[in-house]
Amino acid sequence: MSILIKNSIIVTQDRERRIIEGDVYIEDDKIVEIGNINIEADYVIKNKIVLPGLINMHTHLPMTLLRGYGDDLPLEEWLTTRIWPIEAKLKAEHIAAGTKLAFIEMISTGTTCCNDMYFFEDVIANEAKKMGIRCYAGFSIIDFDTPEMKREKLIPECEKFLKRWDNDELIKPVVAPHSTYACSPETLEKTSELSKKYRAFIHIHCSETRHEVYDVLKKYGKRPLEQIKEYGLLNEKTMLAHCGWITKEEVREIAKAKACVIHNPVSNMKLATGGYTPLPELMEANATITLGTDGAASNNKLDMFETMKFTALIHKHHRWDASIVKAQEVLDMATIDAANFLKLNAGSIEVGKKADIICIDKNMPNLIPRHDIISHLVYSASGYNVSDTIINGKLIMHERKFLNIDVEKVYEMVEKMKEDLLNIS
Amino acid sequence: MSILIKNSIIVTQDRERRIIEGDVYIEDDKIVEIGNINIEADYVIKNKIVLPGLINMHTHLPMTLLRGYGDDLPLEEWLTTRIWPIEAKLKAEHIAAGTKLAFIEMISTGTTCCNDMYFFEDVIANEAKKMGIRCYAGFSIIDFDTPEMKREKLIPECEKFLKRWDNDELIKPVVAPHSTYACSPETLEKTSELSKKYRAFIHIHCSETRHEVYDVLKKYGKRPLEQIKEYGLLNEKTMLAHCGWITKEEVREIAKAKACVIHNPVSNMKLATGGYTPLPELMEANATITLGTDGAASNNKLDMFETMKFTALIHKHHRWDASIVKAQEVLDMATIDAANFLKLNAGSIEVGKKADIICIDKNMPNLIPRHDIISHLVYSASGYNVSDTIINGKLIMHERKFLNIDVEKVYEMVEKMKEDLLNIS
Repeated sequence: MSILIKNSIIVTQDRERRIIEGDVYIEDDKIVEIGNINIEADYVIKNKIVLPGLINMHTHLPMTLLRGYGDDLPLEEWLTTRIWPIEAKLKAEHIAAGTKLAFIEMISTGTTCCNDMYFFEDVIANEAKKMGIRCYAGFSIIDFDTPEMKREKLIPECEKFLKRWDNDELIKPVVAPHSTYACSPETLEKTSELSKKYRAFIHIHCSETRHEVYDVLKKYGKRPLEQIKEYGLLNEKTMLAHCGWITKEEVREIAKAKACVIHNPVSNMKLATGGYTPLPELMEANATITLGTDGAASNNKLDMFETMKFTALIHKHHRWDASIVKAQEVLDMATIDAANFLKLNAGSIEVGKKADIICIDKNMPNLIPRHDIISHLVYSASGYNVSDTIINGKLIMHERKFLNIDVEKVYEMVEKMKEDLLNIS
Repeated sequence: MSILIKNSIIVTQDRERRIIEGDVYIEDDKIVEIGNINIEADYVIKNKIVLPGLINMHTHLPMTLLRGYGDDLPLEEWLTTRIWPIEAKLKAEHIAAGTKLAFIEMISTGTTCCNDMYFFEDVIANEAKKMGIRCYAGFSIIDFDTPEMKREKLIPECEKFLKRWDNDELIKPVVAPHSTYACSPETLEKTSELSKKYRAFIHIHCSETRHEVYDVLKKYGKRPLEQIKEYGLLNEKTMLAHCGWITKEEVREIAKAKACVIHNPVSNMKLATGGYTPLPELMEANATITLGTDGAASNNKLDMFETMKFTALIHKHHRWDASIVKAQEVLDMATIDAANFLKLNAGSIEVGKKADIICIDKNMPNLIPRHDIISHLVYSASGYNVSDTIINGKLIMHERKFLNIDVEKVYEMVEKMKEDLLNIS
């Protein structure tokens, strides 16, 4: 497939963060040329703001099924009376439907790559492949039986999963020990071994709530991050979701280990975790910061444009300083910083990079006048301003229409699966 | 004009907050029938979520011109080096263009009524009339010369403005003393007299920053709200923007006076005002709470769906309680509570009410599955999910197309006006 994007404003996110007026030409999976280009192409797109696709670094994809199922409840009650009972009933068919919906929502709103963690991750990886979206698929490890399998099968099945998805173009298998409160030291060690053996990324929840920090401290005499480090899981492959209650010392540890933090401000605020991922301190320590939506049950959407805005605003307000966490820094977190951490040849618009690209109509009322395009992308844009989404050189959504997916059929299926889930006794 | 909305989910916002499946029929400016309706109509709209149009209670409409002009700066620097110098250059033609853009953005994202405060308010009111949007137009009173006129002309011109727009169908003239730091006691008294003489609403900034509270206290020995009360401006006609730094005693005063608070969480967070409008205390005191975006220079958009989400989340997180400021309460603030305060026969979908109505496509990926429509409207919807906007019975936007406005022409004009403003020396 070849795609020519004409007469556009190109937010390159290259080293100089250049913004260029011109054209982008894509062939197969790569960006081939940037400039003034006259060439025939399978698809021609015009008059856009063009930027790298956004990277959503913390998802639980099938939880779209639970969107709006029990909001405005205290966290404990929400988990014990709503989320856990329904999760226990999940089957592969529910997972497939919820994941399809999540991908449609993400592609609709400009996300081209996600980093997931859930059960039935093989089903999820297969759906990603079918949809054509880039997915770091985290096989959840936890010290309980999951809806998919008995606990003792998790480590061996995770190993098979890592082998099965080795060397895929779109899917990267990830080891995902749930957290230090849901995984024993022995389990953590085993996941560390798997990660080392297969050079796989590690995706883990860390210090989301203060409750969690105190529980782990009480049980093991160590805080979650110390526990993660102790059992060999703190290194340049580690992705730490939340970190809302980490200390300054832990900030330095994370930076030193070259691990990355995944900030999920919308979910944290909605679940009222109270903590603030210490972005200014993490930036000062040169730690990698990336962004995620978390699952749709606690967000309740998967719109990374919204997450970018919340990211900037939550810290300005908390620190009484409008000048911190600037628009360009936030856009970097959602694009090039995440890509660099993942060793993914994307996250910027440069010749030779993978074509993971999104387009926004130049003329939207909320993006006029054009004083500052970066400001507009972070503070003014909505995911629903996205017109075209290209992943790995393939045009998936064009002028807001999906080219190869019957979205209405997916919506119907999801409604059916929702009814089915609620009716299983 | 007659409009029939078929096969839809109707979020009535009536006294019982009923959600009905069925049809809505509109004739002239009114809702005529709700139920299963078979009748011919000028326009037929199908398969929507239908709700009352949102009411944006705090805008400075022409500031769309300054969207993205100087973000990420400390508040003082932003005002003194960016906003004030450019505002000093404003002429009627800039105001008209910026206001048109604001209306297009608001109508695009589901707002059918706004409560504005700026200079050249006559120009703004005229633009509202042309666009067909409902506007409470606040004539700004301040102790400085404005770009429009000398300070001594403000009170007499405001009086003329109140007379001129008396009894208009869409426009209600409002007296808008800027604040207690920019208006002397004498000025406040004069605005109070005008409001009483013409039974006009009062729109005033109150306790937005802590700086402001201390300044006013130092200068007058009274906090802003005490000052407002002292000079006859605290009553059932008063709309108090922000209130981020009010006391518990002031919460009781506001409730007792039956004044209303306008909460602007996005602007407060972006400008890093640090304060939290005390929503739980205001609710407990039965005070009226409404919502606003503030101007596009400090938001940076005019999307009330986003404002609803920020409203719920900022307080949950601040109070460590996911169960406070619930979705239904927030939707009420943006619809029926604001309408009731304004004595506007709208804000709900009931027979005999003014037809200020918006429609959202039922099938959007972020609104599936339908566990809870109210949750979806507050936590999942984006303004860009809105397909149709009806104001005073007139269909202004239909399937995302404006019926009587060339939006591209407005965008061009705004870009031209922006260049013009930046080039005036």
